Amino acid sequence: MTATPDPVYMRFLPAIEDALREHWGSHLDSAPEALRHMVAYHMGWEDNATIRGKRIRPALVLSVVDACGKDWVAAMPAAVAVEWLHNFSLIHDDIQDQSELRHGRETLWKRWGIPQAINTGDTVFTLAFLALANLGKNHPDGVVSQLVSTLSGTCLRLTEGQHLDLLFESQTDVSEMEYLRMIGGKTAALLGCCMKMGAILGHRSVKQQLLLEKFGSELGLAFQIQDDCLGLWGSEIKTGKSTGSDLTTGKKTLPILYAMSTSGPFKSAWQTDHSSPGGIQSLLVLLGETNSYAYAKSLIQKYSDYARIALKEAFRDDPTASQPLEALITQLVDREA
Amino acid sequence: MTATPDPVYMRFLPAIEDALREHWGSHLDSAPEALRHMVAYHMGWEDNATIRGKRIRPALVLSVVDACGKDWVAAMPAAVAVEWLHNFSLIHDDIQDQSELRHGRETLWKRWGIPQAINTGDTVFTLAFLALANLGKNHPDGVVSQLVSTLSGTCLRLTEGQHLDLLFESQTDVSEMEYLRMIGGKTAALLGCCMKMGAILGHRSVKQQLLLEKFGSELGLAFQIQDDCLGLWGSEIKTGKSTGSDLTTGKKTLPILYAMSTSGPFKSAWQTDHSSPGGIQSLLVLLGETNSYAYAKSLIQKYSDYARIALKEAFRDDPTASQPLEALITQLVDREA
Repeated sequence: MTATPDPVYMRFLPAIEDALREHWGSHLDSAPEALRHMVAYHMGWEDNATIRGKRIRPALVLSVVDACGKDWVAAMPAAVAVEWLHNFSLIHDDIQDQSELRHGRETLWKRWGIPQAINTGDTVFTLAFLALANLGKNHPDGVVSQLVSTLSGTCLRLTEGQHLDLLFESQTDVSEMEYLRMIGGKTAALLGCCMKMGAILGHRSVKQQLLLEKFGSELGLAFQIQDDCLGLWGSEIKTGKSTGSDLTTGKKTLPILYAMSTSGPFKSAWQTDHSSPGGIQSLLVLLGETNSYAYAKSLIQKYSDYARIALKEAFRDDPTASQPLEALITQLVDREA
Repeated sequence: MTATPDPVYMRFLPAIEDALREHWGSHLDSAPEALRHMVAYHMGWEDNATIRGKRIRPALVLSVVDACGKDWVAAMPAAVAVEWLHNFSLIHDDIQDQSELRHGRETLWKRWGIPQAINTGDTVFTLAFLALANLGKNHPDGVVSQLVSTLSGTCLRLTEGQHLDLLFESQTDVSEMEYLRMIGGKTAALLGCCMKMGAILGHRSVKQQLLLEKFGSELGLAFQIQDDCLGLWGSEIKTGKSTGSDLTTGKKTLPILYAMSTSGPFKSAWQTDHSSPGGIQSLLVLLGETNSYAYAKSLIQKYSDYARIALKEAFRDDPTASQPLEALITQLVDREA
């Protein structure tokens, strides 16, 4: 058995965590104490958190800047901005989905109530733009304006995706195209944004910026469908044997939608009962009889390939430099958690 | 009887409304239809709205640019940005306060549920920053960066103020200083932001920008305390006779806090009952026996004076140009709705 190598972006993580804490400390130094604490609690910095977010998105920004041969340290405010944006969306998602736990601890709304949690999400959203405003110190002014445009365009895609996700909860039939539009906004847009920001700060041409954005958004689609698979087939993903943990929430993920559109018995069982233990058990059996797992895997492969092609094109003149980014595809998409 | 003259900023309002709608239409043209509609509904553009927001804040931005002798049309994206920001805060406030009506119609959360309303607020928040990114076309890049820094700094103050406002609901004693800190963030910071943005786009020096920001924030304090008085003494404000409409909500506004700190009987009646008709009636009598109305009016006078001094200093070299802005003080603070 060979050990899985650490993701290529691991070396950026300690500096990212320091920069996030420094940014939080400096901007909220005169904020009400409880508000400062709520942000720190969510980020896993206070109240004995044992697990934190993986900080993948800021690491992607820095990985691209580094691959472009530019100083990743000077790009840190952009990395911090995308992590704040991601966390704002988690805080509001948890309220919207009524999720009571995140990283094994009570979510903000569960602990401090919905009104304060909405507001803390808004504070964290604001921190994203405050971070970008900081970039003016080390970069030409035009860069700030491009990054604000990129980040706010991404926020819009995020909220469009979230709107659809909420809508789908009460919509009986959701097509694969509708689903892809939803995750395109909710997950892929932010990964595309990370890569595009890295390309802007890496002084790449507009064409290369767009190609790297495409690299990120295709990777985002693959990443999300892998997430859907993990939710259904858990850590036993390699065997394809379902553990079904995501079935209980009734979330309409890609494998579920595929099973619904190809299997009458699955669809009718889904519409009848996906909350009782017996219902889950029978859904698992029916899901196993569909081609859902293989279909989801084929989509992951397809979007990973698209990501690889866009990346290659972006680094046409310097293929060696793109290798750490290519490694990301496997590391992010074949992950098991 | 003399008719009250129209506020000096009235002439900007039709152009502001057009710009807001145009910005909404262009940015949300590919958004899900229901999301587009929710934003339009809140803004009073669809579903037979009879009353809309007054659009005071964007008009303030343009009034300052105009007073500085610059082209107010080119400053429109900044005006649009502050109006989006204000509306984002209204959408989330309505959820947090469980307000069911705004401008005589159901609030977003009441009509579409809390999850979609939170998300629509986030969309509107995003539109504010998207508007600023647009400014790059007609202004030097450095201006965008300054405006993003100003707007995001203001958002942070807004959420700090909102945090305190929510906290005060369950806090027995709130001091005048705590209250001023809260409205300083929740109301005054955005008015200061409007004036500062106008000064930046009016090409004023950093010193003048800060003086105009102070003009706005002092005006904001006066504006909010006037709002508190309107909530208690309504349209009969000139007589000082209380109609008490705000008493039923139990909101700790400045006049209430003053009455609590100076009248033992009022404080004890407040803590006992401020929801039954009898309770309200007796609170009104006790409030009338305090010096609360005169005290609130003295604070409004004080902050209006501070605003006037800052404005004079900002336009030291060109006092005539500041006259329309000085007129704003009376028009905004002495308003009756």
